[in-house]
Amino acid sequence: MTYCVALKLNEGLVLLSDTRTNAGIDNVSKYRKMFNWAVPGERAIALMTSGNLSVTQAVISQLQESIDNAAEGVETILTAPSMFRVAELVGDAMRNVQVRYGPALTAANASASIILAGQIKSRSLRLFMVYSAGNFIEATDDTNYLQIGEIKYGKPILDRVVTPETSIEDGLIAVFLSMDSTMKPNMSVGMPLDVAVILADTCAFEQYRRIEADDPKFIELSTEWSEALRDSFVKMRPIDV
Amino acid sequence: MTYCVALKLNEGLVLLSDTRTNAGIDNVSKYRKMFNWAVPGERAIALMTSGNLSVTQAVISQLQESIDNAAEGVETILTAPSMFRVAELVGDAMRNVQVRYGPALTAANASASIILAGQIKSRSLRLFMVYSAGNFIEATDDTNYLQIGEIKYGKPILDRVVTPETSIEDGLIAVFLSMDSTMKPNMSVGMPLDVAVILADTCAFEQYRRIEADDPKFIELSTEWSEALRDSFVKMRPIDV
Repeated sequence: MTYCVALKLNEGLVLLSDTRTNAGIDNVSKYRKMFNWAVPGERAIALMTSGNLSVTQAVISQLQESIDNAAEGVETILTAPSMFRVAELVGDAMRNVQVRYGPALTAANASASIILAGQIKSRSLRLFMVYSAGNFIEATDDTNYLQIGEIKYGKPILDRVVTPETSIEDGLIAVFLSMDSTMKPNMSVGMPLDVAVILADTCAFEQYRRIEADDPKFIELSTEWSEALRDSFVKMRPIDV
Repeated sequence: MTYCVALKLNEGLVLLSDTRTNAGIDNVSKYRKMFNWAVPGERAIALMTSGNLSVTQAVISQLQESIDNAAEGVETILTAPSMFRVAELVGDAMRNVQVRYGPALTAANASASIILAGQIKSRSLRLFMVYSAGNFIEATDDTNYLQIGEIKYGKPILDRVVTPETSIEDGLIAVFLSMDSTMKPNMSVGMPLDVAVILADTCAFEQYRRIEADDPKFIELSTEWSEALRDSFVKMRPIDV
C-alpha cells in the first residue's frame, strides 16, 4: 500500500509520502514515491505515486526520458507553459503505460494514481490528481487537499484542521499526524517519509527531505499526539450519553 | 454501508450500530441492524448485521422462525447450551441463505457479516464475528473488540483506549466516538444509533435503546470531541518536525 497527501495552502504546497511497497504481506520493500523537477525561480514540480509500482515507475521514467532526450520543440514538463499542461503530459504518460501493459494485467492490477503539485513562474499554485485513465481533477478551496493510497485513517484530522488559511507550519503538523494515524493501523504504510514544501510564488522547493524511522522529532510528535488523544478521551467522561 | 462495533470488557459487552442502508448513493433507507433475544437471568444474545440486507434479514428471520416454530427437541438460539453453539446456529442460518441466493448473486453482492455477542448462565461472555461462509472468529483479550462495515475511520480511537479493563462507561464513550469518527467522513453511515449493554454474569440487557439524530448528549459529545481534537492539534505546534 501507500499513503501520500498534499495540501494546497495560500502560503504554498505541502507534500508528504511514505516509502513502503508490498507485493503481498510477505514481500515488503522500500521505494521512493515522491519525485521532483525544479528550475528554481521558474518552476517547481513534485509528483507522488500510488498503485502498481511497475506502472508508476514507467510513468516517471517516461517523463524523465522526455526531458533527457527532448528534441527541439518537443514539449516536456520542464517546458510546458502551465501546470494544467504538465498535468496533461503526466496523464499522457500514464495512458501510454496503461495501453502497453493494461491488457495483460487486470484493470485492478494496473491501477495507479499520481498527485501532481507545483507552480510555474507568474502562474498560480496548482494541485492535481491523475487517475489510471490519464484524466485528472484539481484541488480547490472547497477541498484543498488530495490523498492517494490508504486514505481513510488520515482523513479526519485533515478535515478538522486544514483550510486554505492554514500556515505551512500547521500544514506540516497536519500531514505528519495524518501519516502517523495511517501508519499505526496499516502496516503496509511505513517509514521513512519524504516531505516537500513549495512556498507560494517562489517556484522553488523550500524543503525536500527524508524523515527516517528514528527521527526524534517525529517520534516526539507521534507520542505527544497519542497522549493528547488519551487526555481528550478522559475529558469526555462527564458526558453521560 | 454500515458501521457496527462491539467491545468485550471484563465488566460486560457494549454494542453500537448505525441504521443507514443504501443501494447506491441515491437510494438511502433506515433499517435496524441490531437484534436481541433474551431470557433474563438465563441468556442474553445480541446480533448486529452488515452487508447485503436481503441476506442478513433472511438470516434473522430464519433464526426467529426456528424459535417460533420449534418442534420439541429442535435446537434454537434460545435453547443452545453455549454461545459457541449459538454461533454455529447463526453460521448455519447464514450458510442456508448463501446456498439459496449465492449462486444468483455474485459472491461480492451476497457477502454479509454478523457480530454475535452474549452470555448464557454460568458460562462466560462471548463475542463472535460470523462471515458469509458461516465460519466465525471470536474476540479475545488481545483483540477485545470487533467491527463490521466501514471499520477504518473508527478503529484508531478503539486501539488507543479500549482494553479488557476499560469500564462500561468508558467503553460507551469509546464506541460513540468511534461511530462519530465514522459518520463524519462516510455519509453511508448515519443516525439514529442502537446501543446495547450486557453486564457480565447478569445474562440480561442493562441497556437496549435507540439514540436519535437530535439527541442532545450525543451532539454534545461530538462537539466536545471536535474541540478537544483541535485543542490537541494546537498543543503540537511547538514541535518543529
